[in-house]
Amino acid sequence: MRSVSVVGIGETKFGRFRETSMKDLILEAGTKAIADAGMEKEHIEALFVSNFSGQPFCGQGHMGPLVSEALSLGSIPALRVEGACASGSLAFRQALIAVASGMYDVVLVGGVEKMTHQSTESVTAGIAGASDIELDAGLGATFPSIFAMIANRYFHEYGNVRHEMALCAVQNHDNALLNPDAQLRKGITVEQVENGLPIAYPFTIFDCSLVSDGAAFVVLAATDVARTISRKPIIEVIGCGQAGDTLSLASKRSLTTFDATVNAAKQAYTMAGIRPSDIDFAEVHDCFTITQIINIEDLGFFEKGKGALAVSEGKTAAKGTIPINVSGGLKAKGHPIGATGLSQIYEVVTQLRGDGGARQVRDAEIGLTHNIGGAAATCVVSIFKRR
Amino acid sequence: MRSVSVVGIGETKFGRFRETSMKDLILEAGTKAIADAGMEKEHIEALFVSNFSGQPFCGQGHMGPLVSEALSLGSIPALRVEGACASGSLAFRQALIAVASGMYDVVLVGGVEKMTHQSTESVTAGIAGASDIELDAGLGATFPSIFAMIANRYFHEYGNVRHEMALCAVQNHDNALLNPDAQLRKGITVEQVENGLPIAYPFTIFDCSLVSDGAAFVVLAATDVARTISRKPIIEVIGCGQAGDTLSLASKRSLTTFDATVNAAKQAYTMAGIRPSDIDFAEVHDCFTITQIINIEDLGFFEKGKGALAVSEGKTAAKGTIPINVSGGLKAKGHPIGATGLSQIYEVVTQLRGDGGARQVRDAEIGLTHNIGGAAATCVVSIFKRR
Repeated sequence: MRSVSVVGIGETKFGRFRETSMKDLILEAGTKAIADAGMEKEHIEALFVSNFSGQPFCGQGHMGPLVSEALSLGSIPALRVEGACASGSLAFRQALIAVASGMYDVVLVGGVEKMTHQSTESVTAGIAGASDIELDAGLGATFPSIFAMIANRYFHEYGNVRHEMALCAVQNHDNALLNPDAQLRKGITVEQVENGLPIAYPFTIFDCSLVSDGAAFVVLAATDVARTISRKPIIEVIGCGQAGDTLSLASKRSLTTFDATVNAAKQAYTMAGIRPSDIDFAEVHDCFTITQIINIEDLGFFEKGKGALAVSEGKTAAKGTIPINVSGGLKAKGHPIGATGLSQIYEVVTQLRGDGGARQVRDAEIGLTHNIGGAAATCVVSIFKRR
Repeated sequence: MRSVSVVGIGETKFGRFRETSMKDLILEAGTKAIADAGMEKEHIEALFVSNFSGQPFCGQGHMGPLVSEALSLGSIPALRVEGACASGSLAFRQALIAVASGMYDVVLVGGVEKMTHQSTESVTAGIAGASDIELDAGLGATFPSIFAMIANRYFHEYGNVRHEMALCAVQNHDNALLNPDAQLRKGITVEQVENGLPIAYPFTIFDCSLVSDGAAFVVLAATDVARTISRKPIIEVIGCGQAGDTLSLASKRSLTTFDATVNAAKQAYTMAGIRPSDIDFAEVHDCFTITQIINIEDLGFFEKGKGALAVSEGKTAAKGTIPINVSGGLKAKGHPIGATGLSQIYEVVTQLRGDGGARQVRDAEIGLTHNIGGAAATCVVSIFKRR
């Protein structure tokens, strides 16, 4: 398998854009990514599209040719990949395999979501389709309640980390203040989080990620080809792993360790030939604040049960030993589902290029992205290095 | 890239099964395919799921882990691929690339759809999501009307082939009489087709494919590994091509030649090192009768504008020179969208193994599958050979 690198990135602002269509978002982010790669559209040989809610929210499936036509990419192969909130990383991984195999030299991966024009009930029902609709959603377990159960179980096993969960939200909001693409750019306090509108105990509204519109695109190329295309720093994909777990909550071995994360991370670290301690910074899937704490443990950054302590010690803050979600994360940057995994890659590539501006991570050489679908029934972990 | 072969196939009957859930269909077809391969589940390294309408019709997305859990496949990578009615072949192609690249030795591909419990309005709206909802469906152009426009344009360019369209339906129904998995097992006459319930001129109800429940699964293995697993004839994938076209109807170069078919076929023939005349039989995407005529031209079996003549001369009938849709096709076997492309492969493998029973094609050595999404905005063509 060949070495593959990211040569172009583009994204829209994330937010609530009533007058903006899916095609508008696609056109903006896709055009930016292709321009960033400094190449012509004719070089793109295949397209991988990530989208979760186009069918339930917009009545639109078959997003492969929709995106291809919007970007005038001609007759290239195009398809949609879906794995709930992990869709973006799954599409990225399919594109990676296609280039690594030698099948294509240059491919485009894009994720888009248009979610904010729905009623709360409709959004909740659509997102519940990422769980087992018979065994979980059918019993009334929407995602805030599923992850609230996970948080309560975590409290039972490792102690109450309500305060540290709130700190995760505060840190992610602080980070988003420095990200011009972030949806929520306002600081919050621990007190605001803890006293916010109750959602499902222990969550308040500030423990939950956002409903967003947005798109993010990435151009991948074989590394030897990348050097002939791009004048920007080459960001190599040095590791990528994918693992699954049961969809239904009741069938899971553990609610406080996400086996899919552990297994995907193991694959990615092995492929990259590195250890968790070699990671300089990471974008992890903070759909809820408890998830961020569980993730930094499952990824091997901290011992099981010690993630909250690390958060309270500031280790995961922007100036900490391993900055987590310097973009603002799903919590404050936003969570347009199909775009999320690709936006994580956008952030890691931006940092590794040294283009992070006010939010630049110091000495960023190796970055990691972690993206889950549902209650971690799907997980993709990718590792990137500046060459 | 390594040689890849099909080592296991399984499908449900196609039909209207009110009491059968998606999970029931998955369990039946998946279990059959794994058993047919004569191996243990533990050998399966990755899962590719094809589904189109789980979200709009059942509220269920995230089908990768749903299928994986239903079949007790553990933590293997699983994802959903969607490209409207071509979803099955797209998932197959992703699986093929993953094995050909050397990434996995053995993978499972499965497609499922549960469509018959919907109202006609709801089914029509859900399927319309395979077109451009802004530019086509939004103007009221549902698929019967889109393909009716294509038929009328074909009449304009090549003459009225109403009679030969009816013959396609009659032949496909005749073929389905011999297929125990087919949804409609009753013969019809040309007069019945032409005088049936009008749908969109020139189509009557008998020109249209079916709304179906069903599932089809395929096990793929590297050919050198296949020989160690299976005691059945090895069916090698000798060619596979994928191409796209614009999603919106108005943007297409031609309505009577599907460029995506022509391009995907060219790739597949080149990869296989053969010509159209080397194909012994084919399963082609007969969503409407006119589509079957256009397809057999675009695939190179007959000259442009001569497909209808070939049908009337019996060349595409079960005992003809190139039998088309001996399974009964989408028209009579049925069209559970996500399963369709994989069911085409099920039929071709069955024939190449010599297991076709009463519908066995004589001297079947090389078979082709052709699967489109929307108005041929996505096309996959695959070629199989008995080794």
